[in-house]
Amino acid sequence: MKIRSVEAIPLAIPLRRPFAFASGTAHAADHVLVRITTDDDGLVGHGEAPPRPYTYGETAASIVAAVRDLFAPVLVGADPFARERIRADLARTVANNAARGAVDVALWDLVGQACGQPVHALLGHAADDVRAAHMIGLGTPAEMVADAVEMSDAYGVEAFKVKVGRDLAHDLAAVRELRRELGDSVELYADANRGWDADTAIVAARRLNDFHVTMLEEPNPADDVLGRRRIVAASPIPVVGDESTITLGGVARSLLDGESQAISVKVARTGFTDSAKIVGLCEGLGVTTVVGNQIDGMLGTVASTALACGLRSLARHPVEVTNFLLMGDDVLTDPPVIADGRAAARQGPGLGVAIDPDKLAHYRADR
Amino acid sequence: MKIRSVEAIPLAIPLRRPFAFASGTAHAADHVLVRITTDDDGLVGHGEAPPRPYTYGETAASIVAAVRDLFAPVLVGADPFARERIRADLARTVANNAARGAVDVALWDLVGQACGQPVHALLGHAADDVRAAHMIGLGTPAEMVADAVEMSDAYGVEAFKVKVGRDLAHDLAAVRELRRELGDSVELYADANRGWDADTAIVAARRLNDFHVTMLEEPNPADDVLGRRRIVAASPIPVVGDESTITLGGVARSLLDGESQAISVKVARTGFTDSAKIVGLCEGLGVTTVVGNQIDGMLGTVASTALACGLRSLARHPVEVTNFLLMGDDVLTDPPVIADGRAAARQGPGLGVAIDPDKLAHYRADR
Repeated sequence: MKIRSVEAIPLAIPLRRPFAFASGTAHAADHVLVRITTDDDGLVGHGEAPPRPYTYGETAASIVAAVRDLFAPVLVGADPFARERIRADLARTVANNAARGAVDVALWDLVGQACGQPVHALLGHAADDVRAAHMIGLGTPAEMVADAVEMSDAYGVEAFKVKVGRDLAHDLAAVRELRRELGDSVELYADANRGWDADTAIVAARRLNDFHVTMLEEPNPADDVLGRRRIVAASPIPVVGDESTITLGGVARSLLDGESQAISVKVARTGFTDSAKIVGLCEGLGVTTVVGNQIDGMLGTVASTALACGLRSLARHPVEVTNFLLMGDDVLTDPPVIADGRAAARQGPGLGVAIDPDKLAHYRADR
Repeated sequence: MKIRSVEAIPLAIPLRRPFAFASGTAHAADHVLVRITTDDDGLVGHGEAPPRPYTYGETAASIVAAVRDLFAPVLVGADPFARERIRADLARTVANNAARGAVDVALWDLVGQACGQPVHALLGHAADDVRAAHMIGLGTPAEMVADAVEMSDAYGVEAFKVKVGRDLAHDLAAVRELRRELGDSVELYADANRGWDADTAIVAARRLNDFHVTMLEEPNPADDVLGRRRIVAASPIPVVGDESTITLGGVARSLLDGESQAISVKVARTGFTDSAKIVGLCEGLGVTTVVGNQIDGMLGTVASTALACGLRSLARHPVEVTNFLLMGDDVLTDPPVIADGRAAARQGPGLGVAIDPDKLAHYRADR
């Protein structure tokens, strides 16, 4: 099986409502659909690259350019199974992680289809489904509680990642309300998206611990090096590396330097191949890994769920899979399903998805 | 697909000649063949467990008992794809790494067959073939040179792991002769199998470096903790962890504690699943990994080659694949092939091997 063509198709899918966090606000899903077509009876694999310029510097335009101009020439003619070779070849281009991640996801989609097996089975089939976590964007305490209650009522979700990182009093008021309204049995963890300074973060970590918040993600900019290390040393709850730990080597450095104690893994930036390597690294070092969400659309959500169901370290923790609900629509024929607080791995070969040609024609932004 | 039965069949295959190293001598291959049969049209997977009591404490009897009495009850009824779940279930039994490794290899053989793909393709298909390394057992300098020249002439091998760890003058005489007879272009690395004390090893490392020996494996017992760390600090060539680094967490601890600087990975003790995790760990930490050989038979050799061809970090270094030549025969229908100094991954599904029923009947030691 050889790759015949590689496309990067920009999409424009409106959000139902803007999504706010400490480092920015998203209004539309300008994701890029990567489509890899092979000579094997036209077997086609898909991946989704969500641009996050305020976090990683990539734009839809940069992703399209990287895939079309830098990656496609390397990919065309290659065997999709040869992910280790392709990984090394694509690594000649630095950064561009969402573009690279989407290519890797599309390769695994092809590999799974060629094998007649879902991706989570190829990875090791740790679980059939996982607990779903919902990400609560910044808002007034009342708005944030309403969001959580809606997700709990409609989907049975019992794990929430609460966006914080603004004025501490406001953040703590929201967490207090969430804990009061949702009760002691739900899992709350916090994500400051680098919004605090170190001194604020240390106070915050202690107060969040009082509300039984389990983890604190990216409390301050990791480049405030000594500040971050002070937070890690002082925090009673694990400090999670996310946007500061986006490569395999970067994860190792952050952990060894005392700048994080747990790691958020995202297919949107490390695909399946490097995500599995990061999990191997973290298992060896005795470090918790959780599956995060780069405000994924439906396709990325399916991939994230497959990753989590594939590897046991990931399947043991709630998985962030609800962001696609922000989008009014998408290009898949079958949207992901969240029920009873859980998301199940798809059973079809590869990612188990099909693209709706009418929706793709409607939402593509390049025609 | 569900596992229907798990067998552990002890074999007795005479060696052509005894194989000597610092920690012992092997006279016969009393390997254990693990055979896992499924309900899927009788699909059968195989793995080979070579007992090494002087290195790991396992015997053929202990391997048979572990597989039959401890692992089989966990495996029967399970889906062979669910390697992450099975790994966690088998981990309730500590040690018994060769028994556990053979089970994992057999599971991947099944997964590959179910997918219609060779294992190296499932792992990432880094290479079609790899350089072969030959392990030169202890002997007189003339015997050791004769062994190397024979392997070079007959199979084109240009990489040699030289057993050392006895009297240093004798060891260095052998290495000097090997370098003189084989020339500068061959790769020589040394394995002391814990035979020296720290002071001797430090002198040895410097002298071996003079002969352009590239690495030094297990110079002294790793439990001589400070002695090992002194060697690592003083050696001009990387100190390789092998029998002291046999688990994922053990690899991490050895590297972080300064007790090794490169890692030998063996399917015989960590299967494919944990070997891939160890490679992920070592890639993240910037540490070289090489595929070693537990005096594997034909089946283990095929598995070692598949692992090396699957992952790029491993495919870049010579792979120890010649020990099966010590055995006069084995139970595979088609022995591994070494030609032009290289070993190629099998192209058939799974491990791409078939067991010869007559040979199995002849060599099995339990009837």
